[in-house]
Amino acid sequence: MAHVTAPLENLIEQFARLNGIGRKGAARLAYQVLAMEKAQAEDFAKAIVEAHEKIHRCAICQNFTEQEDCAICRDPARDKSVICVVESPRDVTAFEHTREYKGLYHVLHGLISPTEGIGAEQLYVQELLARLKTDEVKEVIMATNPTVEGEATALYLARLIKPLGVLTTRLAYGLPVGSNLEYVDDVTLYRALSGRGEL
Amino acid sequence: MAHVTAPLENLIEQFARLNGIGRKGAARLAYQVLAMEKAQAEDFAKAIVEAHEKIHRCAICQNFTEQEDCAICRDPARDKSVICVVESPRDVTAFEHTREYKGLYHVLHGLISPTEGIGAEQLYVQELLARLKTDEVKEVIMATNPTVEGEATALYLARLIKPLGVLTTRLAYGLPVGSNLEYVDDVTLYRALSGRGEL
Repeated sequence: MAHVTAPLENLIEQFARLNGIGRKGAARLAYQVLAMEKAQAEDFAKAIVEAHEKIHRCAICQNFTEQEDCAICRDPARDKSVICVVESPRDVTAFEHTREYKGLYHVLHGLISPTEGIGAEQLYVQELLARLKTDEVKEVIMATNPTVEGEATALYLARLIKPLGVLTTRLAYGLPVGSNLEYVDDVTLYRALSGRGEL
Repeated sequence: MAHVTAPLENLIEQFARLNGIGRKGAARLAYQVLAMEKAQAEDFAKAIVEAHEKIHRCAICQNFTEQEDCAICRDPARDKSVICVVESPRDVTAFEHTREYKGLYHVLHGLISPTEGIGAEQLYVQELLARLKTDEVKEVIMATNPTVEGEATALYLARLIKPLGVLTTRLAYGLPVGSNLEYVDDVTLYRALSGRGEL
């Protein structure tokens, strides 16, 4: 676009690189940044750089942290016999939000995806297996997404973990709470039916 | 969220400040920025600061530019007898995209909105009127959005401009091309009907 100046075009491209933001959305955001007070824009830029400088992966669970080990791994009140394996740090946030899970986590930072050329060696699988070498861990919960990649990754990891004598479980499939039977897809409904429990 | 580190929380908040990005979307974007290569994140931050440093308003039309006057205002091939009045620089981009408009622009950087406390004095109205003082301009096209605010602003400006002896026009209302009569709202359909033209 010749009528957009180069620094603006550059900013639009930076936003457009993010998943879930299209070209039009990126332009809308870039114009908003331009309309900000200068100090506010500088704070935004600083937040990006600082997040990168200060945050790294926890040496134990690979979740994002400012410390060497993350707050969850260091918490003596957490149940160290259970590890919940998730795809991303966002999933940890989701579980913590429920306030029901008291065990530890392990963040893979991705899922096995042959179509995208992502193999187990690009994920933090060896780090997970290393954690299971001690006798402390009794159960590993596969909490990857209920997608093809999430399923494949869970099955792959379960095959590696079972020989170590650690119980491997998977999140339950079924109806989302508050949903409407009419709008639930066939596979979910089938899973809800076959996984039914006694009242 | 106690389980999110402070620099990450700060970055999420920066994204959440942007219109059209909710708290969840902001978290998704912040995690993406963290997953970037460090150099890429620094480029992003630099793009924000540079856009603010290098871009300012064109002295004539108020559109964003790196120069004193923007490329459109400086272009000798543009028709200087027509000014298209728009709300934002994004609208200029939209018009330029059609490759049909050859006149100049005037960017108001907002619309009159009593509910949001935005009056004409906060917009670049005086700058527009100053441009009409020369005899060069023959027509001003009101190209604000077809919303209550856009309509009110167009009418307000038309009342100021008409006494100067300059033709004031408004974009046509009607059916969007490619739309379906069935899904078009009543007011648009009424406007399309009352504005019908001979084939």
